[in-house]
Amino acid sequence: MSEIKQDMRDIASVVNQRLDVIMDEMCEPGILKDAMSYSLKAGGKRLRPVLCMLSAGMFGNRAQALDVACAIEMIHTYSLIHDDLPAMDNDVLRRGKPTNHVVFGEAFALLAGDGLLNCAFEVLLKLAQNSDRDKLDVVRAMQIVASASGVKGMIAGQAADLQFEGEDVDAQVLHYIHERKTAAMIKAAVCAGAALLRADEDEMKALNVYGENIGLVFQIVDDILDEEGDESKLGKSVGKDKDAEKMTFARVYGIDASRRIAKEKTDEAITALARFGTRADGLKALAQFMLDRDR
Amino acid sequence: MSEIKQDMRDIASVVNQRLDVIMDEMCEPGILKDAMSYSLKAGGKRLRPVLCMLSAGMFGNRAQALDVACAIEMIHTYSLIHDDLPAMDNDVLRRGKPTNHVVFGEAFALLAGDGLLNCAFEVLLKLAQNSDRDKLDVVRAMQIVASASGVKGMIAGQAADLQFEGEDVDAQVLHYIHERKTAAMIKAAVCAGAALLRADEDEMKALNVYGENIGLVFQIVDDILDEEGDESKLGKSVGKDKDAEKMTFARVYGIDASRRIAKEKTDEAITALARFGTRADGLKALAQFMLDRDR
Repeated sequence: MSEIKQDMRDIASVVNQRLDVIMDEMCEPGILKDAMSYSLKAGGKRLRPVLCMLSAGMFGNRAQALDVACAIEMIHTYSLIHDDLPAMDNDVLRRGKPTNHVVFGEAFALLAGDGLLNCAFEVLLKLAQNSDRDKLDVVRAMQIVASASGVKGMIAGQAADLQFEGEDVDAQVLHYIHERKTAAMIKAAVCAGAALLRADEDEMKALNVYGENIGLVFQIVDDILDEEGDESKLGKSVGKDKDAEKMTFARVYGIDASRRIAKEKTDEAITALARFGTRADGLKALAQFMLDRDR
Repeated sequence: MSEIKQDMRDIASVVNQRLDVIMDEMCEPGILKDAMSYSLKAGGKRLRPVLCMLSAGMFGNRAQALDVACAIEMIHTYSLIHDDLPAMDNDVLRRGKPTNHVVFGEAFALLAGDGLLNCAFEVLLKLAQNSDRDKLDVVRAMQIVASASGVKGMIAGQAADLQFEGEDVDAQVLHYIHERKTAAMIKAAVCAGAALLRADEDEMKALNVYGENIGLVFQIVDDILDEEGDESKLGKSVGKDKDAEKMTFARVYGIDASRRIAKEKTDEAITALARFGTRADGLKALAQFMLDRDR
């Protein structure tokens, strides 16, 4: 196995263990906890936590960013649960498993999502209170996360996605949606880890460029996989975006041009890390992995 | 008009103005902002912000707690929007107006709720970053709020409310639900305002007792009004809880005993404030107001 794949597995394993502890600390046993845990544990590569911890590791001990990584994964999971609801994308399959509302009903899926968002902030607040470091570091990391998940970030992307569903395809709107809906939280994962470990302004700028580019690459590859991917590998229905007449890179630019754009943006992301030398080898390898993934 | 009613109006007016500014700062124009603003502006007595600011005012300048008060109202509003959704209580009328999903559709109502919860934390984070005071004061106030709105607080109450709907009435479960679903955020409003202004441990204990009691009184009176209230004054359908076979104080204890319990708890709340002398006149009058309200 390549070094980055091994490192991703190691981080995912630490994150999974920590998420279990967090859930036990925060929730009373019951349906609500079960519903939250069901989606939180439904696998996934833990890409955002990996990005957060690799990024933090460039400026110190990456373990210090573990709770920020977990909070980001909780927010990501809440967004998937709400996005899958019948009123939204009405998805019944996610990561090869029935979606949350299929198992727990719509009401508990709604509350499980609300609960995960709220818990994410509680995790970060506990970190701020218990941490020896300057509270302001944690507050800054929290702001990066909250701003990315908020109404100028992820939620704005979801709103625009809804609003423009079925309408004529337009590159500007496509970028608006994808920058917010997916890329914002990926960028935030990179930047929050670094901010917590006190990266300076210039370093943050470089990581912003990296995060922005890989965030878009992630979505472009997602769009390509939705057109051409292998349902059994992806663990979700393919061709759904096309059926729903969603705006995708594949529809706007075609598959070949989408691949080219993804390759260019990956190169831009890697170039932005030049200043960090070999310290950034992990993030560079991850960018390449995100381009080449088939699931 | 009595002094407390005038003070409530003054605070509500300041809160409403500040909420407008916050919404303009945080949201881009569009359907999402419209949906969030619709429910945020749908009137209401701003009881939680009033509690927060009256409580803060006992320890300093209450204006310092304005953003905490606004954040609490945003969380309260998000909970109403999600609670009214068809998958939950399926309410079409709230404060005399069509509920959010009736006007904006379920998907936007869902996102508007998510957005308000996220924005509430952003407001508090901005306060932490910009405030001259020790960040820890704001972090403590945030923790009180986040814990009350979270999966051991409000969301746990909503989950239990769902879970036990239609089941046999039991006083223990009734208290579990109401302490979490409604009383937790009311108590948090009282305590967060005081914590922000650095109330000491004994003062916080007294305010906890006050908050817990008036939180339950609020819910008991709500239950009584749902049985006996005037639909035109309440601006919402009455008898709904009965129809849905919800557990209410009125059902468990009967109307007369419920009134007696509410009176006793109001007295307990007011007694808990004895140590503060006349500084607590506002909170005392508010407790009486909450007991006597007919809407």
